[in-house]
Amino acid sequence: MKERKIILAEKEMPKQWYNIQADLPYPIQPPLNPVTRQPAGPDDLSAIFPMALIEQEVSSERWIDIPEEVLDIYSLWRPSPLYRAYSLEKALGTPAHIYYKHEGVSPPGSHKPNTAVAQAYYNKKAGIKRLSTETGAGQWGSALALACNYFGLECTVYMVKVSYQQKPYRRSLMETWGANVFASPTDLTESGRAMLARDPDSIGSLGLAISEAVEDAAGRPDTNYALGSVLNHVLLHQTIIGLECKEQLKLVNDYPDFVIACCGGGSNLAGISFPFLHDKFNDDKSLRVIAVEPKACPTLTKGTFTYDYGDVAKHTPLLMMYTLGHDFIPPGIHAGGLRYHGASPLVSQLCKDGFIEARAYGQEGVFEAAITFARTEGILPAPETAHAIKAAIDVALECKEAGAEKTILFNFSGHGHFDLTAYDDYLAGKIKDVEYPQELIDESIASLEKIS
Amino acid sequence: MKERKIILAEKEMPKQWYNIQADLPYPIQPPLNPVTRQPAGPDDLSAIFPMALIEQEVSSERWIDIPEEVLDIYSLWRPSPLYRAYSLEKALGTPAHIYYKHEGVSPPGSHKPNTAVAQAYYNKKAGIKRLSTETGAGQWGSALALACNYFGLECTVYMVKVSYQQKPYRRSLMETWGANVFASPTDLTESGRAMLARDPDSIGSLGLAISEAVEDAAGRPDTNYALGSVLNHVLLHQTIIGLECKEQLKLVNDYPDFVIACCGGGSNLAGISFPFLHDKFNDDKSLRVIAVEPKACPTLTKGTFTYDYGDVAKHTPLLMMYTLGHDFIPPGIHAGGLRYHGASPLVSQLCKDGFIEARAYGQEGVFEAAITFARTEGILPAPETAHAIKAAIDVALECKEAGAEKTILFNFSGHGHFDLTAYDDYLAGKIKDVEYPQELIDESIASLEKIS
Repeated sequence: MKERKIILAEKEMPKQWYNIQADLPYPIQPPLNPVTRQPAGPDDLSAIFPMALIEQEVSSERWIDIPEEVLDIYSLWRPSPLYRAYSLEKALGTPAHIYYKHEGVSPPGSHKPNTAVAQAYYNKKAGIKRLSTETGAGQWGSALALACNYFGLECTVYMVKVSYQQKPYRRSLMETWGANVFASPTDLTESGRAMLARDPDSIGSLGLAISEAVEDAAGRPDTNYALGSVLNHVLLHQTIIGLECKEQLKLVNDYPDFVIACCGGGSNLAGISFPFLHDKFNDDKSLRVIAVEPKACPTLTKGTFTYDYGDVAKHTPLLMMYTLGHDFIPPGIHAGGLRYHGASPLVSQLCKDGFIEARAYGQEGVFEAAITFARTEGILPAPETAHAIKAAIDVALECKEAGAEKTILFNFSGHGHFDLTAYDDYLAGKIKDVEYPQELIDESIASLEKIS
Repeated sequence: MKERKIILAEKEMPKQWYNIQADLPYPIQPPLNPVTRQPAGPDDLSAIFPMALIEQEVSSERWIDIPEEVLDIYSLWRPSPLYRAYSLEKALGTPAHIYYKHEGVSPPGSHKPNTAVAQAYYNKKAGIKRLSTETGAGQWGSALALACNYFGLECTVYMVKVSYQQKPYRRSLMETWGANVFASPTDLTESGRAMLARDPDSIGSLGLAISEAVEDAAGRPDTNYALGSVLNHVLLHQTIIGLECKEQLKLVNDYPDFVIACCGGGSNLAGISFPFLHDKFNDDKSLRVIAVEPKACPTLTKGTFTYDYGDVAKHTPLLMMYTLGHDFIPPGIHAGGLRYHGASPLVSQLCKDGFIEARAYGQEGVFEAAITFARTEGILPAPETAHAIKAAIDVALECKEAGAEKTILFNFSGHGHFDLTAYDDYLAGKIKDVEYPQELIDESIASLEKIS
């Protein structure tokens, strides 16, 4: 019997994160203060982030120690298992080796706590008592709720009202771990009150929830803000995923030709791929990294590379990134974690320079892949994760066509236990491909100010 | 850093199940044909079970080989991790060592597939094309759906209508794995039609769903019936849990003083405890086995030990067991898996003879324990599992009181990802202790026929 699971002992867990900024051919362009348009310095960020995270944001150290306290919490579910997808390979009849890293084993069910725990730790150490954040579908909010619980921090989550109503299970999970969850817009912030004055029945949006969470943190000295993707320090914390994969693949004498992940803000993609890009930069490895996004929100495949805001209200620094325009509102697909108009500056730059390639898929093919996976490997993927699965299956079928015994590694970023209404819709034939019209993308991008 | 997880490699997975019938001081009393009242033979069962399972039901072989094909499916999630609950121990300030076996890592999220996969295998081998079963909350139905998917069997699940409406996620999960799920009562069986004629708005019951599933199987030669607990062969398949625990505890040089599990039909309790009772029978170990049940359905603590039917409609053989009476309808607590009027004959006999002791808890204390667990160990338990956690915490606190460094092992039988409405109710103060009135229990038991 061949072993499906490749397991590391806890003592073999990586003790440092990998900072790809040390290996870039040239530094990425800095964030700009949204008012002055000058490069944003530590002072621009210190009202809402602790200094340790601001330092990580701009660090050029290649390896950054993971604090002992963070490793201890990680050990509740890490190292996560790496699976060889024998059943999927057999069903596809492919000569390719398919591996997936199972990040769904964490208590909130995704890779998000890898950074939530680190952020809670550094904030606690800086004397902060309370963190605020926003959440859409709830993956990030529940990860931060778990992390705050461990470090004795209060956690306030502004959850987009429509999700608050539609996904009560995610809210309950956050509350079980002790978080305070509010349906955004709330009457607790100016941004929220302004929206309620305009539209008392507003169902909210992620852009607005961000504004509420940032306002909450900026207005209280005991409170900081935490973000679940996009920023350099968030991507840094996620590199433990890829670092573990490298150790696990060594145990079976394999190495990926393809590293695949879905891409919303970019953190799970960065987490699994950056440690392999390290090898590409330093040892000239020939691997291909593939970012997978929905056709309904094709940031990397159809966006433009320019400075843009991270939120609708233009409160955040301007980031140099692929963007569909900060006013872009993608259709309401089930993969809520991939509905973001921008992408992390690091991922964007690497895409621009050809180190990462991007593919976009329609929803029908994505859910078909999810079902194939659930009926072979058993595990039910989140709709976001299913995008990576779709690409992995496509590459495996290309290998079959070519008779090529390539090695494919993808990130199983989260399980779908809280997404079963999406499966219901798919099985009832209600999920159709949604492609965002090119002319509307062009219009949204054309409306961006030119900032150099 | 101390290792929280004790992991076995797949090649270290046990290759045989343990049959406790070989070690009992005397054989358990046989099931009786419900019509003739004579001991039920293979012919009484062959209309709905394959011969291989009937043989296991009555076998006195101590070790029974696990088929290679079953081991292969098991390896998707087995061996399951054994956790040392360091965070819980610390929160309780107990000198006790607390270990939990995490059966929630299986794709359906509980221990149920350990027997579902075996049952699907033996039925497939016997030429059966289709399995029928009933499910209440959906744990068992989803396990059988997964198993049938792997062996290419059709799977028909009669799901109690009220659960079908209240737990759509569990239904979606079964459908994702390809099962046909019907809200019981249906118009597909005589039992269902009879009920609908009496009450077109019937919300169904487990007893009725069993009748529908058995009728479906008995009426079609290509179809057999599968049961998720109670029977000897089901308990046999679950012993892989305890056998793995023994290997895992050896790795850390520990051995339990207490083995704890919740008890509905009895299969997760048997699974974790029987391999340790083997040592008690053969090596005179002094361990204590504790079965935990809800005060709302106190089968072992307040029931009577007698012959009774397994279902309301009296279709099943009579089993010698602890029972509250086959007409007993427990209050609608959230731990649906523990709402059964009887208990497995093997567990019942061992309870009667003092090898297993039983405790009953109210719902408030159970959910308080669940929250304590979720905030220390991170993982959200199913309400059924939370009963075992409550008992483990109580024993650990008794150890603290006594200054005793005892070892406690409990079965984390399943996660609570599909039970968050229960947590909502608890956090909103809506869950109250429900104790079934003694006079009603007495009445239900008094109404049983005397069968010797």
